[in-house]
Amino acid sequence: MSKKLTKRSDDYSKWYNEIVAKADLAENSGVRGMMVIKPYGYAIWEKMQAELDKMFKETGHENAYFPLLIPKSYFSKEASHVDGFAKECAVVTHYRLKNGEEGEGIVVDENAKLEEELIIRPTSETIIWDSYRKWIQSYRDLPLLINQWANVMRWEMRTRLFLRTAEFLWQEGHTAHATKAEAIEEAQKMQGVYAEFAEKFMAMPVIKGTKTESERFAGALDTYTIEALMQDGKALQAGTSHFLGQNFAKAFDVKFTSNEGKLEYVWATSWGVSTRLMGALVMTHSDDNGLVLPPKLAPIQVVIVPIYKTDEQYEAISEKANQITKELRKLGISVKFDNRRTHKPGWKFAEYELKGVPLRIAIGPRDLENGNAELARRDTLTKEIVKQEELTERISGLLVEIQENLYKKAYDFREDHITEVNSFEEFKEVLDKKGGFISAHWDGTTETEEKIKDLTKATIRCIPLDAKEEEGICVFSGNKSSKRVLFSKAY
Amino acid sequence: MSKKLTKRSDDYSKWYNEIVAKADLAENSGVRGMMVIKPYGYAIWEKMQAELDKMFKETGHENAYFPLLIPKSYFSKEASHVDGFAKECAVVTHYRLKNGEEGEGIVVDENAKLEEELIIRPTSETIIWDSYRKWIQSYRDLPLLINQWANVMRWEMRTRLFLRTAEFLWQEGHTAHATKAEAIEEAQKMQGVYAEFAEKFMAMPVIKGTKTESERFAGALDTYTIEALMQDGKALQAGTSHFLGQNFAKAFDVKFTSNEGKLEYVWATSWGVSTRLMGALVMTHSDDNGLVLPPKLAPIQVVIVPIYKTDEQYEAISEKANQITKELRKLGISVKFDNRRTHKPGWKFAEYELKGVPLRIAIGPRDLENGNAELARRDTLTKEIVKQEELTERISGLLVEIQENLYKKAYDFREDHITEVNSFEEFKEVLDKKGGFISAHWDGTTETEEKIKDLTKATIRCIPLDAKEEEGICVFSGNKSSKRVLFSKAY
Repeated sequence: MSKKLTKRSDDYSKWYNEIVAKADLAENSGVRGMMVIKPYGYAIWEKMQAELDKMFKETGHENAYFPLLIPKSYFSKEASHVDGFAKECAVVTHYRLKNGEEGEGIVVDENAKLEEELIIRPTSETIIWDSYRKWIQSYRDLPLLINQWANVMRWEMRTRLFLRTAEFLWQEGHTAHATKAEAIEEAQKMQGVYAEFAEKFMAMPVIKGTKTESERFAGALDTYTIEALMQDGKALQAGTSHFLGQNFAKAFDVKFTSNEGKLEYVWATSWGVSTRLMGALVMTHSDDNGLVLPPKLAPIQVVIVPIYKTDEQYEAISEKANQITKELRKLGISVKFDNRRTHKPGWKFAEYELKGVPLRIAIGPRDLENGNAELARRDTLTKEIVKQEELTERISGLLVEIQENLYKKAYDFREDHITEVNSFEEFKEVLDKKGGFISAHWDGTTETEEKIKDLTKATIRCIPLDAKEEEGICVFSGNKSSKRVLFSKAY
Repeated sequence: MSKKLTKRSDDYSKWYNEIVAKADLAENSGVRGMMVIKPYGYAIWEKMQAELDKMFKETGHENAYFPLLIPKSYFSKEASHVDGFAKECAVVTHYRLKNGEEGEGIVVDENAKLEEELIIRPTSETIIWDSYRKWIQSYRDLPLLINQWANVMRWEMRTRLFLRTAEFLWQEGHTAHATKAEAIEEAQKMQGVYAEFAEKFMAMPVIKGTKTESERFAGALDTYTIEALMQDGKALQAGTSHFLGQNFAKAFDVKFTSNEGKLEYVWATSWGVSTRLMGALVMTHSDDNGLVLPPKLAPIQVVIVPIYKTDEQYEAISEKANQITKELRKLGISVKFDNRRTHKPGWKFAEYELKGVPLRIAIGPRDLENGNAELARRDTLTKEIVKQEELTERISGLLVEIQENLYKKAYDFREDHITEVNSFEEFKEVLDKKGGFISAHWDGTTETEEKIKDLTKATIRCIPLDAKEEEGICVFSGNKSSKRVLFSKAY
C-alpha cells in the first residue's frame, strides 16, 4: 500500500478516508454501514474510555449494563422519543433459523416469530427507565447516577467510518433526581466533563452551548452540547448532555416519595459520547503526512528506530535502545522499540509518521559513538540532536509541549474561524469562502432556522453558554434578536 | 426486602437466585432471557475484565471490535459451525418501523426488508475470519493475536441470571498462526491464563482438560477447558480455548505466503470467558448469609460502620474513620465509610454481609476511648478487637489471608468431591448421594458417553491434562480404557 496521502486541500473527505484506512484505525466490514475497529484504532478508543470512565467515577457515577434488545412498545411510551428513534432501526422478528427444505441452505424458521418485535437499542432511555421504576421508591434512592458502555445501532443511510456508522460504540449516562434544579445541574456538569475531556486529552477546543428546539434530543427539554471545528471549516457535535425533565418518568411511571412524604415524578438526564470522537480526533490535528495524535491519547508515545548496516551495529544500538525504553517506561511513557529487521528505517519512519506517533528516536552508529540520538516531533516535523543522557528529560518535556501545541494550534484555527456577520449576504459569503462558525443574530424561531438551513445547509450548532445579551436584528428575517448564535455546516 | 436467605441445604437453586437479587448483582429485564447487570454486579465484572485484559495484553494480544450483526450466509461457510450456532439466534429481518395506518401504533415497515437476514453474533469466528482474509498475506502478518470484549446473543430457552442468559457479555480471542504447533500452543496457553485467573483472582480451583468430541466447540478440532465445582456438587465450565485447525481459514479462504514462498492456509484458535464467571464466583464461595467475595475482586474490600448515639460521638468516630479510610486507600485498599445516618448499624451489618464485603470495621464510643476497633471477617464470620494503630497492617494481612482461605476451602471441597469409581452401580450411587466429579474409565466412544448421559444426566466434563495412563475397563461398556475421565452433572 502506498503511504502517500491525498492532500487536505485537494479532497478533504478522501484525505480523511485514507488516513483512517492507512493508519489502521478502522475499515468497512462485509455488513452494510458497520465498521471493524482495528487494533490501533481501538487502542486509541480504549485510552479515551479509560479517561472518561475515570472522570465519570470521580463525579459519582457507577457503571451498569442493560439489554441490547428493546421491545417495540417501549418506544411508543414517550411521544417525541418514538419519532426520533424508533424509525431507522434494526428489527429482530425471529429467534430461529433452520435448514431449508429445498436445499437452499439455512432459512428463517417462520414458526419462531416473536410475538412482539425487538429493536436493537438506538439509545437506552426506554429500557433503563423501565428498570428505574423498580429501583426508585424514596428520595433516599436518589440521585441515581448510572453510566453504560455499550454498542448501539441506528440504520443510517449514508455512513462514514467513525463519523456516522450503523453500529457504534458509546457511553450513555442516565441519571434520576429528586428535583428539577439538581437534574439541570447534572446535565450541565456532564457537559463540563465532556468539554474538559475534549480539551485536556483530545487537545480539541470546544464551544459549550445549548441546542435550539429543532436540534434537541428526541424527548429532551434542553440539550447541552460541545461543538468542535474541523480543519475544513465544518463543525462536529462532539458530545451532548440532555435535561429530560419528567418525560421518561411519566412515560414509565417512575415516582418517588419525597422528603415531605409526597409522591412525585423523578427528574432525568442522559448524556453520551461515542466513537465519533475518533473521527473528530483525526480531523482536528492530522496533516497531509498522516495522523497526528495528542500524546495523552497516543497508544505509542515514542518509537525507537535503529539505523544500522552490520549485525554488530544492530546489537550495540539494540542494547542502547532497550536501556532507553526501560528508562522511559519507568516514567510511565509508552515506548515501542521497532527492532524488526524485515523493514528498512525509511519504511518505518513513514509508517510511524502515518500513525501519528508523537516522538521518534532514531539511533545510528555515529549517534552511538557521539552519545547522541535524533529526536523527531510529529506535530512540527522538526528534528533535533539530543545527548542520550538528556533524552528522558527532554522527552518528558516534549510530550507536554506537543499536547499544548496541538491544543493551541487547534484553538487558534477555531478562533480565526468564528466570524461575526450582520447580513444574510455576508452570512452566505463567509459560509462559502471561509467556513467555520458564523456568529449571527437569529430571531429565535424554528421557521427562520429551517429556511436558513434549506438555503445554505448551515444549521445552528448552538447558543453559546457565554453569549452576551446584545440588541440586534435577525440576519435572515430582520426581526428582533437578543443574542448571537453560532451557525455552521456540520458533520 | 427481607435480608434472610433460603438455606443452601433447603434449595440451592433458590438460594442462588436470592443472592443474585438481594446482593444487587443482576435482575431480569422486561425482555425475555435478558438481564440487567446492576452497578454492584457490574463493578465485580469490571474487576474481572481489568485483570483478564491485563493478562491478555501481557501475553501479546491486542483488542479490536467487529460488527454485532453477521450475514446469515457467513454461518453456512463452516459446516459444523452452522449446526452449532446458527439455529437458536436473534434474526434481524427489517431496518425500519413506521406509524401503522390503522392507528395501531408503530409497526414494521414491510418495504424495509433486508435482502439477506442478519444474525446477532452468537460468537464471531465467521465475521472475524472474513476480515482476516484482508489482513493476512504473508508470514510476516502472523501471528495475529486479537481479542474482543463484546455482547453476544444465543436464544436460550431456559435462562438463569449469569449462568445462562440470551444476551451475555464476554471476551473472545481469535488468533491466526503460521503453523499447527504454534496454534495448539496458543490454545493451551490461553487455557493456562484462564486457570491462573480463576485460581489467583476468583479463588476458584479448576481442572484443566480437553473436551470429548461431542462436547467440543462447533468447528474446533480440540477444545481445552477449565472446569470448576460448585457447592451443590455440580460442575461448571468456566472457560474454553479452541484449536480450530484450518477450518475457518478454509471456509473464508485465508492463505498466507510462508517463509519458503508457499501459499498455505492459516491455523486458528479462539477462546472465551463470559459473565457466566459471575455465577461461578457466587456459587463457589457464598454461604447462607449471602455473598462471599474474594478480596481481589471485591469492589469494596473494607467497610467502616460507625456505632453512636450522640452527634458528638458521630463526629468523633467520623474523624477517626476518615483517617483510617485515608490510610487504607494509600495502600490501594478500597474502603467505604458508610456514614449514613438514615440506617442503623444492624441494618448495615446485614447489608454488607449480604454483599460479601471481606472485612468490616465497627467503631463505637468505647472503641474510641480505648483506641480499638472491631474487625469482622466475612469468610469465617469471626470478630477480633484490634488496636487502631495496628489496623492497616492487620487489614493488609487479612486480605491476603482471606483470599488464600477461600481458595483453600474451595480446593478442599473440590478434592473431597473427586471420587474414583469402578462400576456403573458405584457411578450412579456417587452421582446421586455425593455428587462432584466422578473419575471413571470410559471406552472413548460417543455412544457410551451418550448412553451414560441419557441414563444419569452426567456428562464428561473433561479428559484431565494430567490424567495418568492406566489400564482399565470402561465403567459402562466394559471395553478397554487407557485413562480415567471426569464425569459430573453440570451447569
